[in-house]
Amino acid sequence: MDNSLKVALLGCGTVGSQVARVLLENQRVLQARVGRPLELVGVAVRDAAKPRAGIDPALLTTDAEALVRGGGVDIVIELIGGVEPARSLILAAIESGASVVTANKALLACDGPTIYEAAQAGGVDVYFEAAVAGAIPIIRPLRESLVGDQITSVVGIVNGTTNYILERMANEGADYTDVLADAQRLGYAEADPTADVEGFDAASKAAILSSLAFHTRVTLEDVSREGITGITAEDIAAAKEMGCVIKLLARCSVGEDRSVSVGVHPTMVPLGHPLAGIPGAFNAVFIESRYAGRLMFMGPGAGGSPTASAVMGDVVTAARNRARGTVGPGESAYSHRKINPEGAERSRFYTAMIVEDRPGVLAEVAATFARHDVSIQAVRQDGQGEDAKLGIMTHVAAHADLSAALAELASLGAVKSKIAMMRVEGD
Amino acid sequence: MDNSLKVALLGCGTVGSQVARVLLENQRVLQARVGRPLELVGVAVRDAAKPRAGIDPALLTTDAEALVRGGGVDIVIELIGGVEPARSLILAAIESGASVVTANKALLACDGPTIYEAAQAGGVDVYFEAAVAGAIPIIRPLRESLVGDQITSVVGIVNGTTNYILERMANEGADYTDVLADAQRLGYAEADPTADVEGFDAASKAAILSSLAFHTRVTLEDVSREGITGITAEDIAAAKEMGCVIKLLARCSVGEDRSVSVGVHPTMVPLGHPLAGIPGAFNAVFIESRYAGRLMFMGPGAGGSPTASAVMGDVVTAARNRARGTVGPGESAYSHRKINPEGAERSRFYTAMIVEDRPGVLAEVAATFARHDVSIQAVRQDGQGEDAKLGIMTHVAAHADLSAALAELASLGAVKSKIAMMRVEGD
Repeated sequence: MDNSLKVALLGCGTVGSQVARVLLENQRVLQARVGRPLELVGVAVRDAAKPRAGIDPALLTTDAEALVRGGGVDIVIELIGGVEPARSLILAAIESGASVVTANKALLACDGPTIYEAAQAGGVDVYFEAAVAGAIPIIRPLRESLVGDQITSVVGIVNGTTNYILERMANEGADYTDVLADAQRLGYAEADPTADVEGFDAASKAAILSSLAFHTRVTLEDVSREGITGITAEDIAAAKEMGCVIKLLARCSVGEDRSVSVGVHPTMVPLGHPLAGIPGAFNAVFIESRYAGRLMFMGPGAGGSPTASAVMGDVVTAARNRARGTVGPGESAYSHRKINPEGAERSRFYTAMIVEDRPGVLAEVAATFARHDVSIQAVRQDGQGEDAKLGIMTHVAAHADLSAALAELASLGAVKSKIAMMRVEGD
Repeated sequence: MDNSLKVALLGCGTVGSQVARVLLENQRVLQARVGRPLELVGVAVRDAAKPRAGIDPALLTTDAEALVRGGGVDIVIELIGGVEPARSLILAAIESGASVVTANKALLACDGPTIYEAAQAGGVDVYFEAAVAGAIPIIRPLRESLVGDQITSVVGIVNGTTNYILERMANEGADYTDVLADAQRLGYAEADPTADVEGFDAASKAAILSSLAFHTRVTLEDVSREGITGITAEDIAAAKEMGCVIKLLARCSVGEDRSVSVGVHPTMVPLGHPLAGIPGAFNAVFIESRYAGRLMFMGPGAGGSPTASAVMGDVVTAARNRARGTVGPGESAYSHRKINPEGAERSRFYTAMIVEDRPGVLAEVAATFARHDVSIQAVRQDGQGEDAKLGIMTHVAAHADLSAALAELASLGAVKSKIAMMRVEGD
């Protein structure tokens, strides 16, 4: 295959093995779509002795760097994940003149600009549709379809593991630890679930989404983050009482001063909101923009085959560019926006606390909220022996103001418990 | 503005006026995103004396052809609609070296390849995101994001007017003609609603979607089509009894022999299906593919501002290409597939008829279905005086087989009414 475009694959795990399969199963179709054949010239793996279904063992190598630097590779697909050695390999690929397709959200969220600048300087493409929300086309719509609009917010369920766990907690009234154990047994959660359940994975995706949506650089460190490990069956029940479900939302938004707020938090979502009904392992991204209004995208957010679909869309796009001697537009980060620290963002909130069940307590609580500029939308008081459980839904308020009000309340003798607090989507 | 890219706008109605507004309101932002300024150099209108808010009257002209052929225009935005003179103007623009952005589904569905081939030969871009489903990014995901996958079906609610009418009929138990009159009064339906209510608009979009999804040429003539003018309050009630709502669906699918079926029909959609809950004037597109699985996109399907968002995404993309001296990939239609005539496609169906209420009638009906290879999933029989209403849900069957069975039933003495028939989504 003389005029073939040479493709090297780094990593052959859940996603990599599916990418290899799609590449090898669809050679004629891919050639027709690209205009030239795609030829898999090497697969870098940890264990080259392990047989891989459908892949010629001669293609396997443990020397990823030699594969990338060997020369003559047109497209390098990086599916190793993590920051190193993925970053060095991608930079080596760019240096060798190859375009890069990657699903590496952790790397892009912590050091994307290094990659984008190297690609720009080297005149090659870097595509990463699979880094966020699996098979759902979301990167390209943000970079291209909505590029004539002004996006005001991007809110997404971008981690399937936590969505699955929260859904089961809601359906079964079960506790977090029980559902987690079962999810691990079924393969929906990793043995070390930290990246998912503590929100790091979603936070990386939020950094990538907000960079693209707002044409500014946002890194993982800019993202305020709270996982789902503290969510109790009681929280789930309280959400239900308020007509909501709890979802781990990545929320990226622009304030009136053009500043950006990015956070990942367990959030109560009213049942009428399109994100409330997103099932189990699915992902969904909800976008609001000045001209288009409200858009939603949903689909499988993970898994080998769906992620391979996103990777292969990028591979064909990069290959078409190469076949035509061009590259796509690179990073767009002209807009150097202030990124708000946690606390500056505004949201509705739900708070719950146990108070003495006597006249005047609600008045004290309400007065404290008012002093801190937090307006109350709804209150629910349920007797519990000599005490009462007070559940309060606020109107949209600054997180910092609410925190100050809650700190003051905590010091009141009338409040007899730790005060729970959760964001509520919508206004 | 010496290095500016010159943009000409043809048509300044609902969408065109919004495109002009977005262009003029966002000059700095657009320049930052493109790398060069975008300059509106002319707006072709029917009445140049009519004032247009925000647009310099000196830009207005009634001579669209002179504007397009004047030379020096980089991008022509065609928002006149209809086949002529839009086609001649687009071809003239391409001949003059301009890239084209259009929302013209009627033209692309009847003669798209003429435009695509001219653009290919002229080395310019033709983008048309706004031609299908308004602000929803669907063209670019099909052309690029999913281009490494194999799409098996695209099912969409792609006409807001009919979706609005059907929703109101369902909510109010009202008849088609009453709701249509009210929709016209409110501006949701045109004075001449034919293109919408008879399904021509949705059929044009179905032709475009299936061409892209299946990499083959599909024209309006290939699309089987049935509008919503025959839908009665009784049909709506019957759908409800079966746990469904009626939606006008555009359905594009691939058979096992790789042949393509494309149709627009009122269809019962089970309440659990993601398309069932798409409200009023919204659009949604549901895609199934071999590797990605099921994806759904939803958003505003019409209106000046949302459609302008889609147009401007294409304008920025075309402008970026031009600024970098390149063009995007053109038409992909390498796959010359058989397109099935109406009747070949397979679906679940619901049929209803009035029969004599006597023992043995159901057996006769069931035997007739069986003789024609139509398998029954569920039957519902309701007494109506001396007669009974028989509602039958079939398993997936060929449309032609069902039609033959129904024709035979119609000649049975036991059947005392016209037989109703409707597709049912899902399997």
